[in-house]
Parts: sequence; C-alpha cells; structure tokens
Amino acid sequence: MENSERLGVGIVGAGFMANFHVTSWTGVRDADVVAVQSPRAESAQALADRCRELRVGDARAYTDLRELVRDPRVDAVWVVAPNHARLAVIETIAEEVMSGRASLMGVAVEKPLGRTLAEARRLLEVVERAGLRHAYLENQVYAPAVTRGHELVWARGAASAGSPYLARCAEEHSGPHAAWFWDGTRQGGGVLSDMMCHSIEAGRYLLTPPGANQSDWLTPVAVSAQIASLKWSRKRHAAQLAERFGDAVDYTRRPAEDYAHATITFRNGDGDEAVIEATTSWSYVGPGLRLTFELLGPEYSMSAGTLSTEAQLFLSREIRSPEGEDLVEKQGAEQGLLPIVSDEAMTYGYTTENRVVTGDFLAGRQPRESLKHGVEVTELMMAAYLSAETGQTVRFPMTGLDGFVPQVAQGTWRPGQA
Amino acid sequence: MENSERLGVGIVGAGFMANFHVTSWTGVRDADVVAVQSPRAESAQALADRCRELRVGDARAYTDLRELVRDPRVDAVWVVAPNHARLAVIETIAEEVMSGRASLMGVAVEKPLGRTLAEARRLLEVVERAGLRHAYLENQVYAPAVTRGHELVWARGAASAGSPYLARCAEEHSGPHAAWFWDGTRQGGGVLSDMMCHSIEAGRYLLTPPGANQSDWLTPVAVSAQIASLKWSRKRHAAQLAERFGDAVDYTRRPAEDYAHATITFRNGDGDEAVIEATTSWSYVGPGLRLTFELLGPEYSMSAGTLSTEAQLFLSREIRSPEGEDLVEKQGAEQGLLPIVSDEAMTYGYTTENRVVTGDFLAGRQPRESLKHGVEVTELMMAAYLSAETGQTVRFPMTGLDGFVPQVAQGTWRPGQA
Amino acid sequence: MENSERLGVGIVGAGFMANFHVTSWTGVRDADVVAVQSPRAESAQALADRCRELRVGDARAYTDLRELVRDPRVDAVWVVAPNHARLAVIETIAEEVMSGRASLMGVAVEKPLGRTLAEARRLLEVVERAGLRHAYLENQVYAPAVTRGHELVWARGAASAGSPYLARCAEEHSGPHAAWFWDGTRQGGGVLSDMMCHSIEAGRYLLTPPGANQSDWLTPVAVSAQIASLKWSRKRHAAQLAERFGDAVDYTRRPAEDYAHATITFRNGDGDEAVIEATTSWSYVGPGLRLTFELLGPEYSMSAGTLSTEAQLFLSREIRSPEGEDLVEKQGAEQGLLPIVSDEAMTYGYTTENRVVTGDFLAGRQPRESLKHGVEVTELMMAAYLSAETGQTVRFPMTGLDGFVPQVAQGTWRPGQA
Amino acid sequence: MENSERLGVGIVGAGFMANFHVTSWTGVRDADVVAVQSPRAESAQALADRCRELRVGDARAYTDLRELVRDPRVDAVWVVAPNHARLAVIETIAEEVMSGRASLMGVAVEKPLGRTLAEARRLLEVVERAGLRHAYLENQVYAPAVTRGHELVWARGAASAGSPYLARCAEEHSGPHAAWFWDGTRQGGGVLSDMMCHSIEAGRYLLTPPGANQSDWLTPVAVSAQIASLKWSRKRHAAQLAERFGDAVDYTRRPAEDYAHATITFRNGDGDEAVIEATTSWSYVGPGLRLTFELLGPEYSMSAGTLSTEAQLFLSREIRSPEGEDLVEKQGAEQGLLPIVSDEAMTYGYTTENRVVTGDFLAGRQPRESLKHGVEVTELMMAAYLSAETGQTVRFPMTGLDGFVPQVAQGTWRPGQA
Repeated sequence: MENSERLGVGIVGAGFMANFHVTSWTGVRDADVVAVQSPRAESAQALADRCRELRVGDARAYTDLRELVRDPRVDAVWVVAPNHARLAVIETIAEEVMSGRASLMGVAVEKPLGRTLAEARRLLEVVERAGLRHAYLENQVYAPAVTRGHELVWARGAASAGSPYLARCAEEHSGPHAAWFWDGTRQGGGVLSDMMCHSIEAGRYLLTPPGANQSDWLTPVAVSAQIASLKWSRKRHAAQLAERFGDAVDYTRRPAEDYAHATITFRNGDGDEAVIEATTSWSYVGPGLRLTFELLGPEYSMSAGTLSTEAQLFLSREIRSPEGEDLVEKQGAEQGLLPIVSDEAMTYGYTTENRVVTGDFLAGRQPRESLKHGVEVTELMMAAYLSAETGQTVRFPMTGLDGFVPQVAQGTWRPGQA
Repeated sequence: MENSERLGVGIVGAGFMANFHVTSWTGVRDADVVAVQSPRAESAQALADRCRELRVGDARAYTDLRELVRDPRVDAVWVVAPNHARLAVIETIAEEVMSGRASLMGVAVEKPLGRTLAEARRLLEVVERAGLRHAYLENQVYAPAVTRGHELVWARGAASAGSPYLARCAEEHSGPHAAWFWDGTRQGGGVLSDMMCHSIEAGRYLLTPPGANQSDWLTPVAVSAQIASLKWSRKRHAAQLAERFGDAVDYTRRPAEDYAHATITFRNGDGDEAVIEATTSWSYVGPGLRLTFELLGPEYSMSAGTLSTEAQLFLSREIRSPEGEDLVEKQGAEQGLLPIVSDEAMTYGYTTENRVVTGDFLAGRQPRESLKHGVEVTELMMAAYLSAETGQTVRFPMTGLDGFVPQVAQGTWRPGQA
Repeated sequence: MENSERLGVGIVGAGFMANFHVTSWTGVRDADVVAVQSPRAESAQALADRCRELRVGDARAYTDLRELVRDPRVDAVWVVAPNHARLAVIETIAEEVMSGRASLMGVAVEKPLGRTLAEARRLLEVVERAGLRHAYLENQVYAPAVTRGHELVWARGAASAGSPYLARCAEEHSGPHAAWFWDGTRQGGGVLSDMMCHSIEAGRYLLTPPGANQSDWLTPVAVSAQIASLKWSRKRHAAQLAERFGDAVDYTRRPAEDYAHATITFRNGDGDEAVIEATTSWSYVGPGLRLTFELLGPEYSMSAGTLSTEAQLFLSREIRSPEGEDLVEKQGAEQGLLPIVSDEAMTYGYTTENRVVTGDFLAGRQPRESLKHGVEVTELMMAAYLSAETGQTVRFPMTGLDGFVPQVAQGTWRPGQA
Repeated sequence: MENSERLGVGIVGAGFMANFHVTSWTGVRDADVVAVQSPRAESAQALADRCRELRVGDARAYTDLRELVRDPRVDAVWVVAPNHARLAVIETIAEEVMSGRASLMGVAVEKPLGRTLAEARRLLEVVERAGLRHAYLENQVYAPAVTRGHELVWARGAASAGSPYLARCAEEHSGPHAAWFWDGTRQGGGVLSDMMCHSIEAGRYLLTPPGANQSDWLTPVAVSAQIASLKWSRKRHAAQLAERFGDAVDYTRRPAEDYAHATITFRNGDGDEAVIEATTSWSYVGPGLRLTFELLGPEYSMSAGTLSTEAQLFLSREIRSPEGEDLVEKQGAEQGLLPIVSDEAMTYGYTTENRVVTGDFLAGRQPRESLKHGVEVTELMMAAYLSAETGQTVRFPMTGLDGFVPQVAQGTWRPGQA
C-alpha cells in the first residue's frame, strides 16, 4: 500500500500557524502537504502556492472542508483552525470518516484543545468514536533544546542523583497578531488560555522520564495561579488595540489577562513532589518571542531559552531599516543587539513534531502526545483560571471543572480584584 | 568635628557575612573598621586580623558587646549577628546609648529584620527610641547591575513609555553554610525567611522611581505564595544534612521549605498595578549562587543575573582540583565551564552599600534604606508564609500578622499538604 | 523521468563524516541514501543499517567502489573518503562514467579538495572532463547561523551602510578522532590543512553579497599566516598521541601544527579592501568543538558561535558519569556547565548542505558551491603555509604554488623556527 | 610621617582619561586627589570640582605644571596628558624633583609610554635619573575579570596541566573621541599605536605566572602584524571625520590604520612557545567598547569580555531617546538589546590599578607594573608596525628599532599596499 510509505497531509486552516507548519515541512521526509483548506479562497490558494514554492507538496486548495477530507490523496488531517472553530471542524471530519465518505489514518489537532474542559473532552470523544489515531500538536515538547535537555538530564543527572523536582517554563511576547486572540469570548480567555498550554505540557514532559507517559508519571495535586492585565488595559495601550482591531477589542471595558503565572504541584512516579512553574505573558517587550525552560533536580540543572541564540546582529543608531519579523517572531526592534533565531520552525519544535507524528501515522502507531494530553492540560488551565479568580489553591482530584467558563471568556473579568 | 570626616565602624558578628563586609571595605573610602565583636574570642580576633591585612582599619577585637559600643573610636555599629541574636544585640546597644555610656551616629542592621513581624517592629521601635539613625542592610539594592539597570530603565524606558509593572527577583543556591540556618525554630523559617527579604526589597526598589521611596510609591494589595521541600526532605539528602549538622537538623521530621515563590501585587504611585515575583531556593544546584533580576514595562525590559559573568573558566575532565568556592559563592563544580564572579563583594552590593550608609551617617542623613523598609519586608514575608499555609491569597490591609509565627518556625510544618 | 523527483545517493566512505551526513539526511526530503561503500565491509554494512534505522534510505553496502557507481539506483555520489584517497576515488568514478558503465547526475566532494594545489586542480579537471555537475561539500556555508547572519547583514546593514570589510572565522577543538589526521604526510599537513578550508570559505561567503559568487566578488591580494605546535609537541602530550595512535604519530620528531592563523586580504567587487581572519586549532580545550564567525562592516556587526547554545546542562561535582560526546562533538568535560548542541548535523550545516545540493542536482543546476571554490580555497591554504614557512606575506597573483608541498606534509617542519 | 598613611595625588591632564581616574577614586581608600593640572584653566577647574563632588579629594586646580609638582600636598603625580605632551611633562617633573623644589614618592604614567621606542626609553631614563619610583598605568592588567581569570587559570589549570600557550587580547571600538588621536603624526600612529599596548601587556600578564615578572618570564622571539584602513578611509567615513574634526584629519590623503592584528611569539620560562594574538580596531561597530581576553593551555581555557555583562536593557522600536554613552563607553545604539557596563572604572581596571599603585607608593615599593614594561611594550608595537610595513616577520633580538618611526606617524602610509 503506497500510503504506508508516504503520508499525504491535508491542512485545515491557512493562518500564521498553518504557515509555520508548511515552512517546517522542508525538513519532513516522509510526508507531503497535498491539500489545504480555508473558508477564504485566497488564503487557501496562497498557502497551496507556498507548498509548491517550498517543494513540500503539490497542494490543492479547498474552501470546503468536506472536500479536503474526501480527497483520496489526503491520508491525515492537521487541524490548525482558530480555537472557536476547532470543535466544529473535528465534528465534520468525524462525520465524513464515520459515514465512509473519507478514509483517514489520523488527525492532528493544534493546541489548546478546547476553550473549556467540556469542549476539550467532547473533541477527544468525537475523535475516538470515529476510530481515528490522534496527535496533540504541542510543538514545544519537540523543540530540540527541550528534547535534548530532557534526554541528557535524565541520562546524566537523574539516573544517579534522583528525579527532577522543578520545571520552569515560560512563553512571553508582546501580544498576538490576529484580532480573535485578543477577544476573550472568542478565544476562550487571554494569555493563559492562549499560551499556558505550552508551558504546562513542556513542564510535564520535562518532569517525566524518557519512555514514560506524563499522564501516568504525574498525578496533579494542586494548582495556584494569578492573572493580571499589566499593560494592555492601561489607557494608552488599550487605545492602540482599539486602533489596530477596532471596537471588537475594548480593553478598558472587557480586558483579558496579559500576564499569568501558575504553580502546579504533582506527585511523581517515585512518590516525590514535583512542581511546574508556568508563566505566560503578552506584556513582555524584548527582542522577540521568548521561550524559556528550566529543569532542576538534586545535583543538576538544565536551562534553555530561545533568545539565547547562536547568532546576533548589531545595527548601530545610524541604520534605519523597516519594521520586521525577519530576525525573530514578534521582533521588538531594528537597532542595537538583536538575537537571530535562524530556523524558527526547527527551534520551536514544528519540524520534529511533524516528523514524529508523520512517522507514527505511517507506522500505524498512536502518537504518545495524544489528545488525551490535550484534555489534561485543559483541565490544569481551567484550574488555574479558577484559582486566579477565587484567590484559592485548587486541589485535585477536583470535580465540577467541566462546566467552568473563565470570567475572561465570559467578558466579566475585572482586573486587580484578585 | 573629626567624626564628620571619617567614620569609625564597629562590627557585631564575625561569621560569613561579617567577612563579606570586611572584604567590601577595601572599596570604602571614608570609614574604617575599628572594632569587631563576637562571643567567640578567636573569631573576633581572626576578623580583626583580616581588617589589618586588608588595610581597612586597625580593628580591636571584643567578646563583650558593651565594650565595643563604648569604644570611643566606634561611631556607628553594623549588626551582623545571627537572626536569633539580633534583637538582643540591638536592645543592648540602645541601652548603652540611652544611658549615655556610648555615643553613636547610627546603627546598621543585617536583613531580615526579624523572624516575625512583632520582632521586626520591636527592633525598629528600640532603635527609634534611642534616637539613632538607622540603615537596613539589604545589599541587593546596591548591587551595581541592579542600581544601573534601575536608573537606566527609568531614564530611558519609563520616562517616555510609562512605569514598569513587573519585577522578577530570585535568589537561588544549594543551601547555607552554617547549621542555624537549617533549623527553622532558630532561624525563623526556611529559605523564605532566609532569603526572600532580598528579592522582595530588590523588587520594590526596581519598581520605584529614582528619588522616590518604595514605602510611599508601592501600596501592597495582595500576596500569594507557595513553599515546598523539594530536595532536602528526600531521604538521601536529609541524611546528608544529618551528617553535616548532627541531630539538630532532622529534615525527615522537622523540615523547612527549600523552595518558595511569591507573587505580590501593589498599587503604584501612578495608580497602576505592579507585581513582584519573588523566588528563593536552597534546592538549586548550578555553578553557584544565582541572583537574577528582571524589570519589565510597556516598551522595555531589563534583566540581570550574577552568573552572567564577564569571565568564564573551562577545566577539562583531565583536571582534578580540590573543592572550593574560589570562583563563586556556593560553587557547585570544579570541571566544565565555570563562571567567575571576579569581585563578589562588589557584585552582590556590599561595597556600595557600605559606601552609601557610611556617607549618610557622616553627613548626618537618615539613610533611605531604613529599618522601616525592613519592617515592611518582614510583613510581606509573613503574609507569604500565611498564604502558603492556607492556600489563600492574603489581601491588604491585613491586621493580625504581628503575632503570626510560621509553622516552619514552630516546627510543625508538613510539606506537600498545601 | 523518475530521477528528477527523488535523488538516489551513494556515499563513498563510512567514517565519522559519512555518519554525520547520514544523520543529517533525516531532514532531507527529496533524496534517499541508496548505497554506501567502504573497503571495510563491516563499516559499510553498519552505515547501511544506520540508514534504514533512521529511515533515510534502503541503502545497500558495497566494498567495491565501481559496483556502487554502477548501481542504477545511484544518481549521484557523495565522496567522503579520507584526504589521501579522494583523488583516486574521483578518478575511478570518472572512468566509470566516461566509459558509460555508470550514469550520474553529479558528484559531491568533501573538503579539503586536495592536499596540494596540484591535487585539487587535478580533481576538478577529472570531474569536468567526465561532464559531471559537482558540489564542494563545505558545510559551514550552509550552517543556519551563518546563512541567516549573512542574509540579514547584507539586507539590513550593508544595503544602506556599505559592504562588510572583515570576516573572522575560526574552528577550534582538541584534536581529531582518527589517526590519519595526525600524520602530516598522509593528511597533507596539520590543523591548517585539516580545517582552515572551512574558515576561509565561510569568510569568503560572508563577505560576498547574496546572489553573487565569491569567486567573482573577491580577488585575493595577500596572505599572511603563522603556524605553531603549541600543545601536542610538548613531551607529555606527544606521549599521549603515541599511546593513542602508536609509532606512526611521533610529535617529538615529526610534529604537525596544532594552531594556525591567517590574515587574507582581498579587493572586493566595490573596489574596497576586505579581510578574512581565519583561525584553526587542535590545541583548544573547551566544552567542545567551537566554530565562531564574525562579520563586520561600517555600522553593523554579526557574530555567531556554535557554543552559544540555546540549552545548557549543569552537573555538580557529586555526579560522575562516563566520558562522552553526547552534548557536543569533541566534548571536554562531564561536570560543570556544559553547552548542549541539540542537533549538530543542523547546526554545523550538513542538513541544509544536503538539501541544497540535492535540490540542485535534481533540478539539473550546477551548485554554486562548486569544486572551483575548493580549488581556490586550496590555493589560499597553500599560500598560508608558504607564508608561515617563510615569514613573508604572499602576494597575489602568485605563480608556482601548484607544486608547493608544505614542510609539514613532507615531515620536515620544525616548530618555533618561523 | 603622615604621608605614609595617606597619599596625596596630583593628576596632570584633565581629559577623558583623567576623568576616568577620578571616577575610579571613589573606590580607592588610602589616597586623595589633591591637585589637578591642565593648560586649560576651565578643564582643570571642572575636574577639581568633580573631585569634590565625588568626595575623592579637595583638589586644587593648576594651569602650571611646576606649581602642581611643588604643592606640598602632592606626594605622587599621575601623568595623564596626551601622547605628544607626555615626555615634556615628565622632563619638567624630573627637573623639579632633581632641583629639590619638589619632593615626590613616585610618578605614574599613562600608556603608551612613547610614540617611538626612543621616546619611551628616554622617558624611563629621565624618571630613573630623578630617582623616582614609577608605575606604568596599564589598566587592563588590573581589570577584575583579567586578574581573577589569571589567578584561577594558574591555580586550577596550569598547576597540574602545564603553562598556558596562547593569549588572545583585543580592544575594539568605533574610534576615539578627541581629534589628536586621529592625527597619526601627533598621536604616533593609528589604532595600533593607540591601543595595542593594552592587548600586548594584558597578554604578557596572562601568560606569566603569579609572582613572576613578565619581563623575565617571556623572551620575545618574533612579531608578525598586519594593519589596514577598513572603514575610515572609505569616502563616506573620511567625510564624517573631516566634518567632526576639520581639515586636520583628512583620511583620503593621510589615513591612519583603523585595524591591526599582531601575532607575537615568545619563549616562556619553561622553555615552551607562547603566543599573543593582539587585535585592535577603530572599525568595530557594536554595542560599545569591546575588550576580550582568552587564555588557553593544555587542559583549560579562560575567556572574558567586557560586553558579556551581568545586566542588559532592551528598548523597543517605540522608544526614541537621545544618543549617549550612559550604558557603555562608545555606545552604538539606543534601541534593541544593550549591554550595561555598571561600573566602567572598575570593569576596565582603573579602580584596582589606583589602589595597587597607591599601596605600593605608600609602602615605598617599586610597582611591579613599571615603566620598564612600558618600554618593552613599545618595542613590540614598533616591531609590529615594521612587520606590517615590510610584510615580513620581525625576529628578536632586533637592533635598530630605536630610531624607527612608523609610516603612519610620518604621514606617508598608503593602505592596501602591504
């Protein structure tokens, strides 16, 4: 069967993230991007053209999701649609598969899995009912610095000195590109909902030994979190948002948090306490997107940061050049010392992610980083929102999180009250 | 008056910290260390000898505190005795001054000011009653990287873009040298009590504009904290402590926290929210003592870290050399890449601290970094312990903290419960 | 034609470098390693097995070079044999092609191209006579930090401020793995012959604008160089070599240089002076292989270094773990702070090199980084040896370098004389 | 005798360097700046005022050098006048002392010692004839990163593995502040004459064991150097110089070198070869003044760089703030990432230099870093110019350097010829 040798991939969504995936595909051997879909025809076409330009696949552009799913060249679907559209997309895919109109080897879904725990659970349920293999697209657990750091800590440190007890993971930048991210009700919250899924899952991965599954190794005990609106609800900056995105985004009246910090405590497989400190921010202004990771244990420590780059450029005050993101995502300046992230798709983990998921689907294996992880991460995020709202540590096992909708997502949050 | 030109300083205490002060004195122009005191005669003598060796003063060694205070060459006293002895020392000094047996221009007191808020308040009261000028010896607010970073952020960043909203300050190492630090009841707690005072005050300093006083600029709103015993209550490491310090330190039965994280929210002088993230650890194992600082605002950020050194040494696996702290305090290895902190007394702030306090006392000025700050910091630390014990955010104004004694200081704390 | 879609690659050589290429192939989309050859059957078989394990090709193992060349699955050959075997390999390949027994789209040859200028010229001649497209495998001009740094310097710096005038390139480590590298007569010299080809070509690449060819942009004017035997001819270290490699490597009597520095001056396409400082060393002992690059111009500078890694591991003095090269090539320690090069094949440029050369061969294009560059680099290296031997700057145009054989390659060099 | 306890210092010169010395004096305990002299009264007065403001001495301002020397409060003189005035100043001081009109404990002289070897030798001769103790003010051998790096390499590395064999020292910035530096005939050359003295002496210091004297430990064997005018003789930049400094500085017709590199070989006290690579540049554009140091030996390496700072500031493209040197000397930008050198006088070595020289003079000791070192360094610099001019390695012992005047100093140098 020819599909077992080379995977035909259809990408649903044609925005910023979809472009990242396509770029990463230049480093993926065993799969081609054969189809892309977006309700906006020109976006779909542009992405398909880019696939050809990068020689990652002779991609056909669709506006109709069902057509993409039915395309016989498509063996697996990557769902990269916005948060609010994701569940509906999955339901459509499942319908097509269950009806026999389409045949797929697997589906891969971008994080976060849901805007609420209920939504995330529902999504997993739909996929499982359709009998599909599934991957949770958490790129950071594939970032080379994270995977090598993890491997070396466990092999050289934990092997003799004992398991690590603290993982610090952070993602910080100056705020997202597209309008819907800023709208709490559409996105599901603010920066916590947008990005803490990354830091939580990276932390779980780092704290778990190679070969084990974080779902088994780490039992959640407690979550404590704080959120704040530090920058974007200041008058000057709220006005900037209004100017960029129009009335839909009014942070003087319906702000979302632009800063969140959570401390999550687990019992690990050795019976020891293990802690994740997860930090996310849209109020960080530095050279660009900053991902940092630390893993600490009894006689060792590992640290990694995406702005600790191999290469740096310095431009003097004499040089005026146009605003851009050519050195790094969310770039903040065009003078002074500037770190260069040479291959962002590789550094952030997309390249390896797509290699691994492709390999699993081709081999008929269920990817370890499954949608179940996405559900667990969503649960911890909801616990973090709840803790931040109530000023109380949330203890596990915890029931009743299913129906919980963060105040930010409801548009009722008032900063500075907790 | 001759005292106005050159300050004669008496140091009370002759341990690790007293040695740091004496070393720093090689960079202090207008004062001499003329006396040192310790109940242990040989310690006092050794420190006095070191003063002469470093040419920082022809210091006389005392075992009797009252004699030091009455020494006419002593114009001011630096109290560097252990936490549990500090209040008694201050009371004795005050008695001597109020009785007219001694005449002093001021007294400088090491952090933390008290093991409880009551103790800190009592200490300030005693000093004020004696009519003494007073300095709170928080070295980190004098560290050159912190003071220059602060100055430049406010001048180049905040001046046009608005005040900073987030300060992250951390102090992390592998654990203290002396036994009493490890004993919660004597020391007042674990790592939070030992070191979070540094990070809180550094954070308050950074968030406050030059020329303003942090007591006025920052009004506390809420404190949320977590503590844990990540390393030292593990069986293997508790046994190491017992071996080093004897039965007095039994972390299987009476552990102290070796990790603490607090989020402290303030309203600042502009009416905006400002946050300190303070982190302290005795469970960090890296090249050595690590102090890190970040200050973030709307269009700028500053970061500093004492292990980001100008100089690094690499020693290959072929080189075996004895264990030491010659590269950095709390050094963790003698192979591999190793940062060199060239002048620790300068880097950590002691040199400038002693220059500034000396200058204030000589000029007859009350130092800005006064014992009042020490009281405020103690209050925030107690709120952090309370939050960690209850799993609840502590909101200000808060009454009743005076009598609060942390469980760790009572010897009743059980890790993993909160 | 099916070959136009997917390139079948045969690798000649199965040592350290061949393994690096195979590893890099996990990131190469449009080609498969279909054959490998080594005179040692077990080496060939091991490498072929590794190809399958990494899923980069169903490679067949050969001991006979001619058989590999004739294998119809082989569309192009990568020649990664040792320096002393390279020309003979190429001659054999050319014979097979010219006789019609084999059909190839191209041949790619590892650096340096020859041990003498005559050898390099001969190699190019043979390949051209056979009508083959050819690539010079200089990995460093494909290293992501180098290519992105180059691109950004020219786009953001040189575009408005003028072309760069100084490139500094260095490769330094503790010495090669295999015996033949240490034997001047077999290898062609010492560290200069082994590695300066990298730094010279990286420097030429950096100084040349995107789209231009360094052969055209840079006209050599003068070469000045020094070589020395700083470490390995010291008695203790010469004895270490003898122990590792036997009598063949006697650095007390026939040393090769373990340090070389060259300053190469060019006239660039703007008529301005441009300088390469190239440094190579086998006497550097640090965390591991160190490649550094700087590109300087009137109002900008770029710097990159492979030991400026995203991730670092710290292992305390309590941890003893076995010697290894798992963190970085030529790793020097297993304690202390240790940089982690997460994906060496990518960082050093092999992955992109193989993507680009593959793409060129598939498209029927002559690769820009051609064997002609290899000849030019060899010429500059010979000029450097000549300058070091005579203590005189070598000026271009220079005739008579063809027949020049360095004293080190002749076994007649005496350190400390120049 | 009161002078034995506290040294009264008179500073001759009131420019950029004199200000650096005065700033550094805030960290010097046993000496006061009691007098300053400049032919320009307002400069002298401004510097004297600054001494009072910094509380480093109640300095009297002189325009007449003889009056300063005769001032009874002056125990020692620091000569910080420009290169072309230095010898005359020393001759005047010596006359005053030999005539008995003045009494001094010592004289300290800024580098370089002379614009030619003859001048440097003459200066030493004059000082010795006057019977004065003398210090050569080479700040870099007192820089904390250099002194600690040196100490630790020898103690932890060389002690067991053997002496270091390579020192790399560089000083690079965008060009000096004052006009006379740019004028080859007044200054004595270009960047080599201006700054290579630093790197050579730092290199000699690093290669020499603690306690030994570099004059004894290191015997020069050969010098090879290159100079170039990479930036400032380009039309655009020569015009900038003309605009800043007027016709006196015409780099289209009388350029000085803005880049120099020298390789200096020594035989060390162990009989082994030891090499200095010295680099200086006025054509480096980066965040600011960059001093770098490396010391390499058989199983170790040390590296230091003044731009590897503890603290960094980031200012986004939204922030426009005035040009300045508040973060670092020769600052190049006010946006982007910017290293902060918190205490430049300490980092560059001035503070410790003045502590050590003061201590030596007070103790009646001849400083180890004597004018003899200044003569030796000048000799190596002249050899470097000679090598660069002739394209030949200069071998030692070398006679006839005394009368040598570099072409750049004669105004006859033509770039791009060597």
